[in-house]
Amino acid sequence: MNDHQIFDLGDFTTQHGATLRGAFLAYTTYGELNADKSNVIVYPTWYSGRHWDNEWLIGRGMALDPDQYFIIVPNMLGNGLSSSPSNTPAPYDRARFPHITVHDQIVAQHKLVTEVFGIERIALVTGWSMGAGQTYQWAVSHPEMVERIAPFCGSPRTSIHNFVFLEGVKSALTADSVFAGGWYGEQWPTTGLRALARVYAGWGFSQAFYWEKSWEELGYTSLEDFLVGFWEGFFLDGRDPNNLLAMLWTWQNGDVGRTPGFDGDTEAALASIKATSIVMPAEKDLYFPPEDEEWAVSHMTNAELRVIPGIWGHFAGHGSNPKDTAFIDAALRELLAKPGGLD
Amino acid sequence: MNDHQIFDLGDFTTQHGATLRGAFLAYTTYGELNADKSNVIVYPTWYSGRHWDNEWLIGRGMALDPDQYFIIVPNMLGNGLSSSPSNTPAPYDRARFPHITVHDQIVAQHKLVTEVFGIERIALVTGWSMGAGQTYQWAVSHPEMVERIAPFCGSPRTSIHNFVFLEGVKSALTADSVFAGGWYGEQWPTTGLRALARVYAGWGFSQAFYWEKSWEELGYTSLEDFLVGFWEGFFLDGRDPNNLLAMLWTWQNGDVGRTPGFDGDTEAALASIKATSIVMPAEKDLYFPPEDEEWAVSHMTNAELRVIPGIWGHFAGHGSNPKDTAFIDAALRELLAKPGGLD
Repeated sequence: MNDHQIFDLGDFTTQHGATLRGAFLAYTTYGELNADKSNVIVYPTWYSGRHWDNEWLIGRGMALDPDQYFIIVPNMLGNGLSSSPSNTPAPYDRARFPHITVHDQIVAQHKLVTEVFGIERIALVTGWSMGAGQTYQWAVSHPEMVERIAPFCGSPRTSIHNFVFLEGVKSALTADSVFAGGWYGEQWPTTGLRALARVYAGWGFSQAFYWEKSWEELGYTSLEDFLVGFWEGFFLDGRDPNNLLAMLWTWQNGDVGRTPGFDGDTEAALASIKATSIVMPAEKDLYFPPEDEEWAVSHMTNAELRVIPGIWGHFAGHGSNPKDTAFIDAALRELLAKPGGLD
Repeated sequence: MNDHQIFDLGDFTTQHGATLRGAFLAYTTYGELNADKSNVIVYPTWYSGRHWDNEWLIGRGMALDPDQYFIIVPNMLGNGLSSSPSNTPAPYDRARFPHITVHDQIVAQHKLVTEVFGIERIALVTGWSMGAGQTYQWAVSHPEMVERIAPFCGSPRTSIHNFVFLEGVKSALTADSVFAGGWYGEQWPTTGLRALARVYAGWGFSQAFYWEKSWEELGYTSLEDFLVGFWEGFFLDGRDPNNLLAMLWTWQNGDVGRTPGFDGDTEAALASIKATSIVMPAEKDLYFPPEDEEWAVSHMTNAELRVIPGIWGHFAGHGSNPKDTAFIDAALRELLAKPGGLD
């Protein structure tokens, strides 16, 4: 889990005007870059995910085959491995970590891809959830570079309802007085983290998932075992509260329309995408519902909507359900066989 | 708002074995009981609702017409007007208020209806949300009394997902250290109440309601105005935290199958209902989704599923949206014109 590289971003000025001095990206790669640099896949991380949490979709015989492709997984700024509240020195540390937009994330990743590897074309960008948001942003920020995109269970603009869901998540964490405005000490606000986890639990999987007690497929022995073992365990597993809130801000404010040059016009930003696209919402995702992506696709020129069927909701894209994984993998294989949008 | 009566329940022993000494129900009535006592409607309250919160569905020219019907609105135990954590003396006060089941609610309401008014037949029981749960319970506990039921946006058994949603609501409130295990003083845990409100906000209305900014129809001027003005205001409006948690327990543990005699068999309990029934979930209700009520109706013998169309989600049954109100009112009118299930 420590097999990552560090890319020095130097003085990194954010879209909102802060400068993180000595900022850095943690990243890892799978496979080898070929001679004409035509086999590049970029696969950003999701909310609180680390590069190794993406590995379920990478492997020999899968679409993301490291024998064939050079797969770069950059960790999101804020996730604890790249520059984050938890690892930035004062004065931009902890609760003072600056607001990072999705645009900022792709500025940083673009520097990595071009300056370290000299890459000019990307065969595919893909990602889950906030990784999907970064995928859309890549295609809008660098239409001349990105041949194909496959965002799954995520959106080009965070919907208002999704924003509200995150307000609940945030409020539960910060209601714990131990949080202390982000200036907690060595003792973390674990009551707040556990509350956040319980709030999240109702959103992450669908109503039908709970009705069917599908947590049993994940090895949990009761509802409470799932709430404690999976959900509370998930957020207590080294996930720094300030990091969670930094990424939450990024998520809440995601909108490709805020890319410089589009002046808030999300539809124009979507229309500017050249990449061949397969957009994959999950049928019962409660915060990225399929109708939102239907809207997104309606503003894109070379995009197909392909809904992941089933009851796993948002976590269809987490790699826990073999059926959903097979569905996503098959779509990626098909997409990689299609002409890119720049041909 | 103080126009209610008090019915003395005496020593009230709950299903779980506690005895509330000097328990009472607050209730109000609309219209006059006719000579043969054939014009009775019972309309229980919802989670944190008070009797006056039901008045939007009562009125001259509406189905629930006080010129024609005698409408009894009993306040739920726990709602602050009937026996509740906030008004019960020690030792069963506050955090020690006993667990009240939906079955207990109907035991108390049955005493009221029979002992105060000598009523033997009820033309209709109806209610929203937890009021719908009480409606189902009436039909299961007293099949020989209830001619018709019209539960809307509620269920005979709280689904597991609904239970999880409520875990999030509860966790957000209790994460506030001012809550102090329920032993807060005159200063209420308002940070926790506001957190609870923000968690609730994402669930109460649908994704599409937020997409369409339908809060504007309620007079709110921005999303934040809606979150503070409607949601935080809602829960800060005299809603005692221990009362909220008492009712939440009742809700989480709702199941007509736990009626004595059914031994946990919800389907058998549903099959025992004799009342003519129209069951009305809302199309986009996130915690009482229509498929759950489709399941319920499939186990009833004289029931119709009629989905309230539109984007208001759970709050379709709150009386705020004229279209939804008209839909519910029309269904009640139709149901009241049908033969009762005891004819």
